[in-house]
Amino acid sequence: MDRGIKEALIDIVGPDGFTDQLIDRVAYSYDASDNDHRPEAAVWPATTEQISRILILANEAGFPVIPRGAGTGLAGSAVPICGGLVMDLCRMNRIVDIRIPDRLAVVQPGVVYADLQKALSPHGFFFPPDPASGKACTIGGNVATNAGGIRGAKYGVTRDYVLGLEVVLPDGRILRTGSSCMKSVSGYDLTRLFVGSEGTLGVVTEIILKINPRPTAFSTGLARFARLEDAGRAVTGIMHSGIIPSVLEILDENTIKVLREHGGMDIPEAMAIILVETDGYTEAETAYQMDKVVSVFEKNHATHIQTVDTAQGAEALWSTRRSVSSVAAQLRSNNVSEDVAVPISRVPDLLTGISAIVRNYRLPFVIFGHAGDGNLHPKIMYDAADPDQARRAGAAVDEIFRLTCRLGGTLTGEHGIGLSKAPFMRLEHDPVAMDVMAGIKRLFDSNNILNPGKMGLTV
Amino acid sequence: MDRGIKEALIDIVGPDGFTDQLIDRVAYSYDASDNDHRPEAAVWPATTEQISRILILANEAGFPVIPRGAGTGLAGSAVPICGGLVMDLCRMNRIVDIRIPDRLAVVQPGVVYADLQKALSPHGFFFPPDPASGKACTIGGNVATNAGGIRGAKYGVTRDYVLGLEVVLPDGRILRTGSSCMKSVSGYDLTRLFVGSEGTLGVVTEIILKINPRPTAFSTGLARFARLEDAGRAVTGIMHSGIIPSVLEILDENTIKVLREHGGMDIPEAMAIILVETDGYTEAETAYQMDKVVSVFEKNHATHIQTVDTAQGAEALWSTRRSVSSVAAQLRSNNVSEDVAVPISRVPDLLTGISAIVRNYRLPFVIFGHAGDGNLHPKIMYDAADPDQARRAGAAVDEIFRLTCRLGGTLTGEHGIGLSKAPFMRLEHDPVAMDVMAGIKRLFDSNNILNPGKMGLTV
Repeated sequence: MDRGIKEALIDIVGPDGFTDQLIDRVAYSYDASDNDHRPEAAVWPATTEQISRILILANEAGFPVIPRGAGTGLAGSAVPICGGLVMDLCRMNRIVDIRIPDRLAVVQPGVVYADLQKALSPHGFFFPPDPASGKACTIGGNVATNAGGIRGAKYGVTRDYVLGLEVVLPDGRILRTGSSCMKSVSGYDLTRLFVGSEGTLGVVTEIILKINPRPTAFSTGLARFARLEDAGRAVTGIMHSGIIPSVLEILDENTIKVLREHGGMDIPEAMAIILVETDGYTEAETAYQMDKVVSVFEKNHATHIQTVDTAQGAEALWSTRRSVSSVAAQLRSNNVSEDVAVPISRVPDLLTGISAIVRNYRLPFVIFGHAGDGNLHPKIMYDAADPDQARRAGAAVDEIFRLTCRLGGTLTGEHGIGLSKAPFMRLEHDPVAMDVMAGIKRLFDSNNILNPGKMGLTV
Repeated sequence: MDRGIKEALIDIVGPDGFTDQLIDRVAYSYDASDNDHRPEAAVWPATTEQISRILILANEAGFPVIPRGAGTGLAGSAVPICGGLVMDLCRMNRIVDIRIPDRLAVVQPGVVYADLQKALSPHGFFFPPDPASGKACTIGGNVATNAGGIRGAKYGVTRDYVLGLEVVLPDGRILRTGSSCMKSVSGYDLTRLFVGSEGTLGVVTEIILKINPRPTAFSTGLARFARLEDAGRAVTGIMHSGIIPSVLEILDENTIKVLREHGGMDIPEAMAIILVETDGYTEAETAYQMDKVVSVFEKNHATHIQTVDTAQGAEALWSTRRSVSSVAAQLRSNNVSEDVAVPISRVPDLLTGISAIVRNYRLPFVIFGHAGDGNLHPKIMYDAADPDQARRAGAAVDEIFRLTCRLGGTLTGEHGIGLSKAPFMRLEHDPVAMDVMAGIKRLFDSNNILNPGKMGLTV
């Protein structure tokens, strides 16, 4: 990095806020995806004003700035593909305010998701989105990727809970969007333009979140199916039964096999498992909902149905679900975790189609995901040291994206486009949409200094 | 209107799709606000392609186009303040598809809100937002203003249910945003940029809406309070009690007086009435929630509490609430209906403050609204033929906006900025936000032909 720029950065963030040591540059070249590229340096800003000064400098000197949370992203959104300066927001980790009577929390972007939940818990409140990386990921990252999780069908995603933002624009100006009100239709919805924009339009420095009272009663149910079609019909049947389950997860045949053979779990073979949670305020209410679910299971020829109302019993079922990703990851040295979504009724087609595609490329894989909102995570294992395996994994993913778009789906339900899906944006979006998105990027960041190279935008 | 343009328009929409007769121009000079201005002509397009051709023509010839739903808006968003061509979307009123297994409905913008609910009802589903003008207003208008209603605290607003859009851009290009998926984070959130944009960025021609299973059980409760502070504490107490009521409405002292004296209703005097509905799947569940509400009422010294579990009993209570606006409107020949919102805990301050302001201007008024999301509707009655009354009404509204912004509030919770609130945008938004909004308007509509003069944007 240019000596003058380095000195200017140190002047802004202090000597302990800057690094260009190799070990840090290597650490900041990755996220949780398979992408990597080294930045020239990294900073740990502590204030909005420092961030503003850094962006002004970047615009003058013309170097890329890549905002970063915990690096748990699965799409390469935080990987500095054009080099430049990684801006790690971990020092801006203050829960600024919890205002229960106003039903909101104000946080800095570096607050860890689990820390916010811990702080809300004594009040009986929670932040409903629930990314699987919740122990490590930051709220800033949740906002940047519009993070979802297993409760999406009932509770929606991060976007539905962001009331307002403080954002440093690429030119250094500080923008305040939204408000502390539950409702507002005052001017354009700038807030949601930043949610899911993967740090390409501005650096979010403060977030006002709507929070919910935490449900106090839960029921959990599990069903095994001998035919995938039956499981698919059960998914749409549940969503059609008059209730909205808080969780509706599906595990495919392969997932079950991997859990049996590699996770040492005592699960009978099946073509699919569906896991459902219903929540509410009273046991009668969660049971009422679970009765509907069970009756859908029965109507669709589930070969085994189990329901539990105790936290302990539920934990046993959920630990199965939670172990899928780590057990599967052991099969090969590398894996690619995808995140496609389709209209709910197309979930069976997507499951069958993905299985056929990956089998054809002879790679181990599992498919699981949030069937209640049509969002599946196929995970394909391969050995990156074997170029042929790597090529086959890439080709399989390519075909999965094409299938998804043919089914009226989207490339990403909750992980973001980043680098991994950038080449496929035009499969989903027509030239008009791509042009409008690029226009928005240019409007905010005419010099393309903020997280360049992401989302397939031609700037 | 220029003869050549008129002929070109008739060529696009046919002779029965165009009017420049005085009676129509007068009809299209109003909405439900106090603003008015005559357009030069109006069209009733029937297809997306016609709309595209009209906008291309408007860009070439440089005349304004003002998209219009049912004209029930209360902020002047559909009033053609710069003249030009009103584009009434009433002929695009087809419910394109109801896909219950996918949990969505696809509609054209001219579909009347009530017609959509009627079509969803046999499936046991509903579209949760519920504008008071639901019998007449259109879904396109709901999208343009991000319409809310009395169920906002639990169910959110229109924005939370729009999955995707077809939009004709001001330059005539056709844009498709979002998808039929429950979740997507693929590219910038263009969908929500159009929601609430009041027809200034594009003409929405198709809407994909997420729909919900309709709750099957309801409880209704009413409490009267002798002190406003107690009612205010009850509002925050309810939102803090661990449940989210489906409805939480407040009527102020003046509203009660007007209902007694002018509505002929047998209601005892009180400083405030709070009306609450809880909903769910079972009676036990709604009763559980209502018990929490009642205990908050008791703790906050309600002088009278009434709960009903029958539809008939509830109807009696709700008819009181629903008659407020029409009874109050009889007091003078004109009225202005405002729509300010504040953080929930500031509702008592807003009530007290608005009362003091309007009393000072010696005009009859009522205040009611959706306390559960901090959104109040002060309605000030005046006689427009008396210039002094009109001036006083305007001055009162000005002060109400200033108070709202001092309380951390927003000019509009659900009606939109339109013309009525355009002069006040800078009270709420700083120069950076105003500049970014104007930049977005210029990006989409560089010739400023689409609904110009709205939202206080300097283009």
